[in-house]
Amino acid sequence: MNDHPIGIFDSGIGGLTVLKELQALLPQERLVYLGDTARVPYGTKSPETVCRYAVEAAAFLVNRGVKMLVVACNTASAVALPQLRERFRIPVVGVLGPGARAAVRHSRKGVIGVIGTEGTVRSGAYSRAILELAPSARVFAAACPLFVPLAEEGWARHRVAHLAAEEYLEPLRAEGMDTLVLGCTHYPLLKETLGEVLGPEVALIDSAQETALCVRQELRRCSLLRRGETLAGEFFVTDTPTRFERVGGAFLGQSLERVRQVDLDTLFG
Amino acid sequence: MNDHPIGIFDSGIGGLTVLKELQALLPQERLVYLGDTARVPYGTKSPETVCRYAVEAAAFLVNRGVKMLVVACNTASAVALPQLRERFRIPVVGVLGPGARAAVRHSRKGVIGVIGTEGTVRSGAYSRAILELAPSARVFAAACPLFVPLAEEGWARHRVAHLAAEEYLEPLRAEGMDTLVLGCTHYPLLKETLGEVLGPEVALIDSAQETALCVRQELRRCSLLRRGETLAGEFFVTDTPTRFERVGGAFLGQSLERVRQVDLDTLFG
Repeated sequence: MNDHPIGIFDSGIGGLTVLKELQALLPQERLVYLGDTARVPYGTKSPETVCRYAVEAAAFLVNRGVKMLVVACNTASAVALPQLRERFRIPVVGVLGPGARAAVRHSRKGVIGVIGTEGTVRSGAYSRAILELAPSARVFAAACPLFVPLAEEGWARHRVAHLAAEEYLEPLRAEGMDTLVLGCTHYPLLKETLGEVLGPEVALIDSAQETALCVRQELRRCSLLRRGETLAGEFFVTDTPTRFERVGGAFLGQSLERVRQVDLDTLFG
Repeated sequence: MNDHPIGIFDSGIGGLTVLKELQALLPQERLVYLGDTARVPYGTKSPETVCRYAVEAAAFLVNRGVKMLVVACNTASAVALPQLRERFRIPVVGVLGPGARAAVRHSRKGVIGVIGTEGTVRSGAYSRAILELAPSARVFAAACPLFVPLAEEGWARHRVAHLAAEEYLEPLRAEGMDTLVLGCTHYPLLKETLGEVLGPEVALIDSAQETALCVRQELRRCSLLRRGETLAGEFFVTDTPTRFERVGGAFLGQSLERVRQVDLDTLFG
C-alpha cells in the first residue's frame, strides 16, 4: 500500500490514451500527467534530444514524489528507457515492452507489423523487443508521420486518413502480417480506419491497454497499490494549457481542467 | 558596406526556402542560418512560447554579430516581431509583411486567402497586415496542419496532398478568392498541387521571394550591403544535424554540410 501518485509523461497529448486506461483499470490510484507540449513532437527528433527531454520530464515527476514512472510515449520508450532506469530509483514502465508482448501473444503466423513515428521506427526497438520474445518472428516497421496530425486535426475517419493508411500499410500487407502494433499513442484514434484498410484478419495491438495491465502487475509485485477513494488526476504541460485542454479533452473524452504550466528549461536547464 | 552576416532563423528547415532566395538575389552576402529543430514546430504552440523561442534564437544570431535578422518563419513573424524589434537594435525583417504586400499588389478583386499553421492563422496577423494596406479587401484564412508533414514526407505531389488541399481550400474557393498567400515556409513545395486544385485564376504568393526583395531594399536603405566574393552559408541547428542535413538538403536542392549543433536552453535557459 502506497499513497504516492503514479507519474505519466508524454511529448504532448497522445499519452492521455494511456492515462485513460490507467483510470479505468486502477481507479483508486492518484495520477500525475506531464505533457511536454512546448517541445512536442519527439518523433522527429534525435535520440540524444529525446533522452534529454525524457530525463527532464521524469525528474519533474520524481520531484513530485511519484512511486512509479509511466513513459506514455513510444518514441521516448524506444530510446530513453535505459537512461531513465539508470537515473531514477523507482520502477519505470514504457509502452513498448507491453505492446511487443501483446503482439507476440496475438500473432499466429509470427508476421508482425509495427507503425510509429520516424524516431520509434528508426530506433528498431520494437523489432528487438519482439525478436527477443519470438526469435523466429518476422517484423516489418513503417513510419507514418501523417497519422499524428490527422488524429489531432480530427480527421481520423476522413478520406485523407484512409488514403494515407492505404499508402503506409501496403508494404506491410504485402509481407502477409497478421498483427499490427499501433506504436504511437495517437494511433488508437485511427483504429477504425486502420481496421477498414486492413480487414478483420489483422489484429490491431493498442499498447495503452497492455501498458495499464503491466502497470497493475508491477504495482502488485512491488506492493505499491493504493487503496482508498478515487481522486482526480493532476495535469501539467510545458506550453500554455489552452490547446492541451481543447485537443486533449477531445482525446480523453472528458473535460480537462486545472491544467498547470511548468517550465522544464528553467528547472533543469 | 558592411561585412557582417545576415542572420536567418526558422523553427526548422522551412526557412531554407527563404535562404535560397537570399542566396540567389544577394550572392555576395554572408548568411548564417539557425533552425530550432529541437523544438520544431512553432505552429501548434502558444504565442508566449513562440516569442520565448524566437527571442532565444535571435539572441544567438545577434551574439554572432549579424547586421540584420530575417525571421524566416511565418508563425514567429506573426507573433514575435514587435518583441524582437524592441529587444534588438538591428533591422528585423519578417516574412509576413512582404507576403501581405505582394498579395495586395496581385489581387484584382481584393478577395485574398491565407493558409498557414494554426498559430499563424489564430494570430490574425496576415488579415491585419492586408487590411492595413487595403482596407476594403476581404481576407479568409485557413490552417492546414497536414501540409508541413506532407512536404517533409516527400508527398507534396501525392494523391493524399491533393485530397487534403481540396478539403482545406474549398471554403476559401467558395468565397471567390483570386490570390492565395502561402503563409508557411514549407508551402512553396506544394505549389504545383495547390495550382492544380485552384486553377490558373488564383495567384499563389510565395513570401520567400518577396522577403528576399524586402531584405535587399532594407540593406540598401541602411547602407548595409556587402561587396566581395561569395561565401558559403553557415548552418546551426538545436537538435543533432542528421535529419536537417537529409531533409533540408532535399528542400534546398543542395547538399548541407558542416551543420553545427547549439543548445539554446543552456545558453539562455
